[in-house]
Formats: sequence, structure tokens, C-alpha cells
Amino acid sequence: MKITAVIMAGGKGERFWPKSRTSRPKQFLSLTADGETMIQKTVKRLLPIVDAEDIFISTNEMYRSLAEEQLPQIPKENILCEPAPRNTAPCIAFSAAVIGRKYEDAIMMVLPSDHLIGIEDIYIDTLKKAAAAAEKGENLVTVGITPTYPETGYGYINFGKAAGDTYEVERFVEKPDLATAEKYLASGKYLWNSGMFIWKISTIMENMKKLMPEVYSGAVKIGEAFGTPEFNEVLEREFTAMPAESVDYGIMEKADNIYTIPGSFGWDDVGSWLAVERINDTDENNNYTEGDVCFADMKNTTVCGGKRLVAVVGAEDLIIVDTDDAVLVCSKNSTQDVKKIIAALREKGRNNLL
Amino acid sequence: MKITAVIMAGGKGERFWPKSRTSRPKQFLSLTADGETMIQKTVKRLLPIVDAEDIFISTNEMYRSLAEEQLPQIPKENILCEPAPRNTAPCIAFSAAVIGRKYEDAIMMVLPSDHLIGIEDIYIDTLKKAAAAAEKGENLVTVGITPTYPETGYGYINFGKAAGDTYEVERFVEKPDLATAEKYLASGKYLWNSGMFIWKISTIMENMKKLMPEVYSGAVKIGEAFGTPEFNEVLEREFTAMPAESVDYGIMEKADNIYTIPGSFGWDDVGSWLAVERINDTDENNNYTEGDVCFADMKNTTVCGGKRLVAVVGAEDLIIVDTDDAVLVCSKNSTQDVKKIIAALREKGRNNLL
Repeated sequence: MKITAVIMAGGKGERFWPKSRTSRPKQFLSLTADGETMIQKTVKRLLPIVDAEDIFISTNEMYRSLAEEQLPQIPKENILCEPAPRNTAPCIAFSAAVIGRKYEDAIMMVLPSDHLIGIEDIYIDTLKKAAAAAEKGENLVTVGITPTYPETGYGYINFGKAAGDTYEVERFVEKPDLATAEKYLASGKYLWNSGMFIWKISTIMENMKKLMPEVYSGAVKIGEAFGTPEFNEVLEREFTAMPAESVDYGIMEKADNIYTIPGSFGWDDVGSWLAVERINDTDENNNYTEGDVCFADMKNTTVCGGKRLVAVVGAEDLIIVDTDDAVLVCSKNSTQDVKKIIAALREKGRNNLL
Repeated sequence: MKITAVIMAGGKGERFWPKSRTSRPKQFLSLTADGETMIQKTVKRLLPIVDAEDIFISTNEMYRSLAEEQLPQIPKENILCEPAPRNTAPCIAFSAAVIGRKYEDAIMMVLPSDHLIGIEDIYIDTLKKAAAAAEKGENLVTVGITPTYPETGYGYINFGKAAGDTYEVERFVEKPDLATAEKYLASGKYLWNSGMFIWKISTIMENMKKLMPEVYSGAVKIGEAFGTPEFNEVLEREFTAMPAESVDYGIMEKADNIYTIPGSFGWDDVGSWLAVERINDTDENNNYTEGDVCFADMKNTTVCGGKRLVAVVGAEDLIIVDTDDAVLVCSKNSTQDVKKIIAALREKGRNNLL
């Protein structure tokens, strides 16, 4: 069966401010020394199993030109722009309906646009096995990541008995508190929810019909209008009428036949500036620098320079990011608090910096 | 007797990089929220006892236009530019010879251009008393500062018995090591050498004649040529022929009739970026910020912003300085090591940043 992919690229990604801005979120940035953006890497690593013309980008109008510019190999009609933010379920239904117009049935892989994969061969093999499991029945397959510490920022998957290359899923759980996360980790029965889903178009549409009928009927109308002059009008009307709901809550927590396949391919969600030293080479003092940087007695520090010289003396445990109109100096313990700066700038109406 | 002043303004002052550059050293910068430069403050606080036309600026050609621009009240012919660096003794002899052409004799106060004074009334009273003591005989008078900690970066003055408002000086000593500085502090018989000297023109010239005859004879020729068409030629020839020597070593450590007057006027030599929080108002977390700065959870940090936003999150004990072409992030423990950056830039030939 034909394998298609939908890359979710609508997120705003404030955690990489000041390099990320509303006008250029994380998935359209390069955070690695090779200069490739996150979404370019995501597309490139899929090409061994998905033709470029079967890769769809789910985003919004603000990012259409960035997507077209960074992904010239993707047909322009594959860039699907949602007219309003409605969380993941409507967005997946919209994509499934469009792909359903192209192929009678097909495997649909839903993949994040802003994660990194360490070992691409294992990643591809895992997706192939997931696709085979999805094709075999009316199965909803997810990729689970073996947890290495009690992260409280991810959802977890409680898996049960083995079924071929996959495991039956007992239940999906939301982001736990630390004590619960520690229990999950100790139990050996939980994986992280990576946000990667693999199913047949027919399977996800049947589940939408049963569990999210409003979303389903809107998506069917959008699919019927695809390629016609009325498309934009129908999309606008039907999509904005859908309830904002995640596919995790709307489908995965309620459906039957959920399976997970553990992914052992070195996954990194690149969740904050702390990731930069992890995904790049560092020096003997665990410093990572890029751009025009001059330092003395610097330790465990990440410096992303811009057009000017960044000079660092005697600093430890910092993230320093220089851009044309803003420079960030952030303690490594406080990377989650960059959002406080963004909130303050928003309150002051300084939109040119957001 | 007429009181004149020579403000020493030839220093390069690398310790305020990146705000200070070779082309604009510390004395020509503002480091206080009021925007006045160090040399502007120095001149302004002297005006109660010295007429603007009797204030001389000792500097070099590179800083002539900065001095003219920042000090419009000073006659242009009072800006004395040494043709080559020769330390303080030749520079003082040159100034004394020029002032000697203007007045048969006069009080000459030699003052640094880049220090701050807390209580200006006491400062003025101290200089008046020093001038009176200098006028009374062939006395060389210095202002001594009561040490508050065992600083190893200053010279010390060992004083003896009282003589009116002043004390006899036993000896001048160079920068001591920490153990010696601690001993000085404990003894109660030492003051810091502030680099402020007060004497009559006739007294300093007599001492030069006796202790530094080469410097003396060159200075006499320069004084004779002042105001004639040959001045620049004579200055160039005679000044460059003088030995580079400090007035401390060449005169003060050898002369008789040395007196010191303790200055209790809140002196600060503004020796490094650490001084900025000391000389400005800070918030309840001991932060000082100027310019476009946005911060969260910042403590004990100084931020001198430039044209762009500086955002600081969770940082402690830092100095952050933003300029158009360079940004410095420096631990407060490492401010003396900013020179390592300057050395590295010099080695790389990056003169535009120096």
C-alpha cells in the first residue's frame, strides 16, 4: 500500500526565542551546525520510504511561503494551510480527507516537523514496521520512545502484551506529575508519546466518524471540495466550525486497536535551548559556539552568535543567543522562563520582537 | 595665587571594553545614568575654584577632537597633545612649562580625568587646603585616600607627622602584594595614592631641574616655543627625546618636602565594570540596567544595553554590555580578564573591535 506522510508544521515554538519568532518558528530554523532547518531534515529523512509528492505539510498561511522556500521538492498543493488553529484532530482529518482524494486508501504517517533523529536507518525500519502493522487491520499505531528520566512534559503510553513488532496499548495518559512519572519509569510498562501516528486513511476516517462525527463530516466536505474553485470557501467554513481537540484526547484515548512500536533511533524533541549542546559537538569544557564568538574561561555554555562579536569571560552554565535586534542571556536552569520575557514583550506591545 | 589644573586624559582604558575602544577611552565615556562623560564631570566639579581658561587637558592627538567636542568651555589652546607616550613626568613637565608661560607662577593641580567624586564640596575644600599648603613653601602635595580594603592595584603613601592640614610623607610605595597591603591597612599609617598632585609651577620645575634634568631642559624649550610657529616642531623633537618615566618614581619617591592631605570625599577610580553598580542606583536585587533591557529572575547583575533589546533570564553575578558590533557577557569574578579578549582580538588583527 502507498505510504504517505503528513508533517505537522503549524506550531509557534516560543522556546527558541529570540532566534525563533512568530514569523519563523522552530521547525523553520536550523539549530545544528550543518545549517539545515528542522523541517528540511524531517523531509529528507523520510525520502527513503515516501515519495516527495506524497509528503504533505500541515501548517497555516503565515508559514506557507517559508515551507515553499525551504521544501522546493514538495508539490505546492501538498502544503495544507488550516484557516484557524483547531489543535491536531481537525488538522489530521483535513489532511486525511485530502489524501483520500488522491488514493483510494493509503498509509498515512503523521509526524512532527521539529524533532531530531539520531539513527535514521532504525527510524526508517521502525516506520516500515509500523506501516505494516497499520496495513494489517483497522489499527492505530504510534511510535513510543523508551523513557530515560521522569520527564513531566510528555504524554505517556501504557503498553500491554506484544503483538508482532508492536505492543497493545492499555491507555494513553496526559503529562504526569513528577511522582507519577517516576512510577511510570520504574514500572517498565510505559513509553513516551512521541506524537508519531501511523494508520490507514480508511482507519482514521472510520474512527473520526465514530468518535468525532462533527470533525468527520466537515473533513469529508473539505475533501470533496479539494481541487475545485470552492475549496478555500468550503475549507474556511467547515474547518473553523470544527471543535479544537487533540487527536490524543479525541481518538487515541477512546479508540480500540491501538498499538505502539518502541522507537530506538535516538529521538530528541529539541525542547529548549538546552538541546543545542546535546545535538551538536561541544568542546572539552562542554561549550558549544557558533558564529563570531571569542571567549576566555568559559564552561558548559552555549553561544549562538549572530552578525556581531559575542565575547564571553568567566561564564558558566549559560545560554547566549545573539540576533540582529535582541540578545538573550539565560541561565541553563531557567530556559523554561524565556516565556516570561515573551509575555513581558507582548504586554508592552513590542510585536516586532515576538 | 592663581590656581590652574592639568587634567590627565591620555589613557587608553581597556577595562571598559567593549564600550571603551582605542578611539574612545574611558575618560570620554559616560558610565553614569546622567549621560555626562567622566572628563566632563571632572571639569565641571573644578569650576568653583579654577576658571575654565585655566584648565588644561593633557592628552594626545587621537583624542583632541573628542576633548574639544566634550569640553567646549575649555580654550582649544589648552588642549595639550603629547606627540608620543612618555608616562606622566614628561607630560607634567610639558604642561608646567606651558602654564609657566601664561603666569609667572601659579598653583598647578594635576588631576586624573576618569575618577568619580562623591561629595564635591569636601573635594573642593580639600583641593583648596592642598593649594594653600603648596603655596606656603616649596612643597609637593598629594591627595591620599583612606584605604578601606587591601587593594593591590594602587600605590600607597606612608605618612608621618601632621603639618597643618597635611601630613609629612615618609615614602611612596609601589603596588604591594596582598600580605603587604594588609599590613599597610592594619598599620593605620598608609593612604592610597590617588594620583592627584598639587604644587607651584616653580616648585615642580625646580624639582624637575634637580631630579630629571633631561625632562626639565626639554620642557623649558617647549615652553619657550609655545605660541610660536615652531611649537609643533620643537614639541615633537624635545618631547620624544625625553625618557618615559612616572612622576611617582622620577620625583615623588626622591624629592623632599612631600606632604599628603587625606581626602574624605567619596573617591572612586571606576577601575572596572564592577564599578558601574557602585556608582549608580541599583534595584532591590542589586541589578543595574540602562538601555533597552528586559529581565526575569536576575540578581546582582549589571546590564549596559545598546540599540537592541537585551533579555536576561535567571542570571546572577554578570556584567552584560551591548554595543553595535560586540556584546560582552562577563562573570563579575572575571572582569580583570576582559583583557584576554582584547589580546585575542589584537592577535587576530581585528582592530576595528579594539
